[in-house]
Amino acid sequence: MSTSPQFKKLALIGFGLIGGSIARAAREQGLAGEIVTTARTAQTRARVTELGIVDAAVETNAEAVKDADLVILCIPVGACGPVAQEIAPHLAPGAIVSDVGSVKGAVVKDMAPHLPATTHFVPAHPVAGTEHSGPDSGFAELFIDRWCILTPPEGTDPSAVEKLRAFWAALGARVEIMTPDHHDLVLAITSHLPHLIAYTIVGTADELGQVTSSEVMKFSAGGFRDFTRIAASDPTMWRDVFLTNKDAVLEMLGTFNEDLSKLTRAIRRGDGEALFEHFARTRAIRRGIVEIGQDSAAPDFGRRHAPLGKKPE
Amino acid sequence: MSTSPQFKKLALIGFGLIGGSIARAAREQGLAGEIVTTARTAQTRARVTELGIVDAAVETNAEAVKDADLVILCIPVGACGPVAQEIAPHLAPGAIVSDVGSVKGAVVKDMAPHLPATTHFVPAHPVAGTEHSGPDSGFAELFIDRWCILTPPEGTDPSAVEKLRAFWAALGARVEIMTPDHHDLVLAITSHLPHLIAYTIVGTADELGQVTSSEVMKFSAGGFRDFTRIAASDPTMWRDVFLTNKDAVLEMLGTFNEDLSKLTRAIRRGDGEALFEHFARTRAIRRGIVEIGQDSAAPDFGRRHAPLGKKPE
Repeated sequence: MSTSPQFKKLALIGFGLIGGSIARAAREQGLAGEIVTTARTAQTRARVTELGIVDAAVETNAEAVKDADLVILCIPVGACGPVAQEIAPHLAPGAIVSDVGSVKGAVVKDMAPHLPATTHFVPAHPVAGTEHSGPDSGFAELFIDRWCILTPPEGTDPSAVEKLRAFWAALGARVEIMTPDHHDLVLAITSHLPHLIAYTIVGTADELGQVTSSEVMKFSAGGFRDFTRIAASDPTMWRDVFLTNKDAVLEMLGTFNEDLSKLTRAIRRGDGEALFEHFARTRAIRRGIVEIGQDSAAPDFGRRHAPLGKKPE
Repeated sequence: MSTSPQFKKLALIGFGLIGGSIARAAREQGLAGEIVTTARTAQTRARVTELGIVDAAVETNAEAVKDADLVILCIPVGACGPVAQEIAPHLAPGAIVSDVGSVKGAVVKDMAPHLPATTHFVPAHPVAGTEHSGPDSGFAELFIDRWCILTPPEGTDPSAVEKLRAFWAALGARVEIMTPDHHDLVLAITSHLPHLIAYTIVGTADELGQVTSSEVMKFSAGGFRDFTRIAASDPTMWRDVFLTNKDAVLEMLGTFNEDLSKLTRAIRRGDGEALFEHFARTRAIRRGIVEIGQDSAAPDFGRRHAPLGKKPE
């Protein structure tokens, strides 16, 4: 398929980690004649202008979407409905409207009713991120070799879907199409539950009487620090994820709790065989993830250290 | 303190990730006149000899510890008692005997009764590691800027403790001294519980009916992959950790379960305020860890990507 991912005007509603990364990558790849973004605060707009990545950082969403043939909402899931309602009267006929939300069922339900029939609604979710947020946090390489899931409602114009697919492919992503409901189940286990667990354990560690916070931080290289990274993700975004994907998250949580009880019982009874068997099985899953290129096998995450006896650069 | 970390003969019982890393770093830093290791299988001994890092890879622990002034057990916690009993008659008077186990109470209880009064027992735990194991997995930089905790029993010769401290400092580690019981509590929350949780959730994801394993792997960049890394750690080592630090782990698990119930309730009730407040708090803890240098703030763990439009190197 050779659809050109080129757009006349790309409007990004929101310039955080994802919006900022799309802007940088789209600019580098020459995917849009013009890139315009909105940002809620004057401070963020000033910073975005200073960064010089977009053609304009404007105050109102109405102004941003005017004449845009691709509009992407890069804002927390809970804000998508109201913004869809706000921009609807200003959308150009034929425009593709998309988002980057981590939940798709709720986004479709909230946005679709507001969008004019003359536009093409193609919800999207790039499965990529870091724990950083804000206008400075984005980088052009964020989506390389990561997956972007599109969940077009039934009856969406296939050429609009294809055009957005080609856009994400040009940003470096691999693209998959599925239903919103299946997306929400898959992400509940691969993303939402891991975040909930990480948020929990980091909170637990912070409130212990017997071990100080300073000790928790000092000795975090034993495993804990891996959890703190994802427990440092944007609080507003994650609040919205759990409020809007409640059912799937609670379902996965139920299964997780049963499995945790099983392992807890094995520890209490001193059942070394059951523990060993479980731990050997999960090791194989990790190998699969490294083999398909979704993580690096480099020790210590490939972080570079200065050689012993030399100062780090 | 300027104690020389130099030893005449260093005996490493076991040549996995930790033993192999100590050997490489000690060799690079010239910390021992001679380094001898044991390995259980003929295959590992052949590989260790091939690697050319140590002066000899021998079959019996008795032979390895002969005339050694520093003996370090680099084996799973559960094997430390029997090995202490085995090597005791062969230890040179004045030798420092240490280990690298992730649990200290059980190791002290299992090893101390066997060791002759003419030797100095200084248990140690370098809080560093990767998910890899085996003779090829070690690297000299593993301990740089990581903490090594010493838990000398009361009455241990201070000069022996100081000599081992200087040895670990020369490997790049920062050294802290605490009691075995406090060590086991601190590590239960910073390392053992995170591993248990990670082992659990990776197992849960592997057994779901509605989401395939292949989907779990593909979309793991949403958070799940961070858990798979620690759930890929050595199964024997971790079985022993949970069998020997049972009480502290079960105690931390109890607190974790209460906290998870609280967050679950907030999700079920749609209490966005409680969720936001919790998520904002845990973010601050992450900042603390990055500030004290126990993790990198680089996006995507500092993994290098080729620029967009170019092939990775």
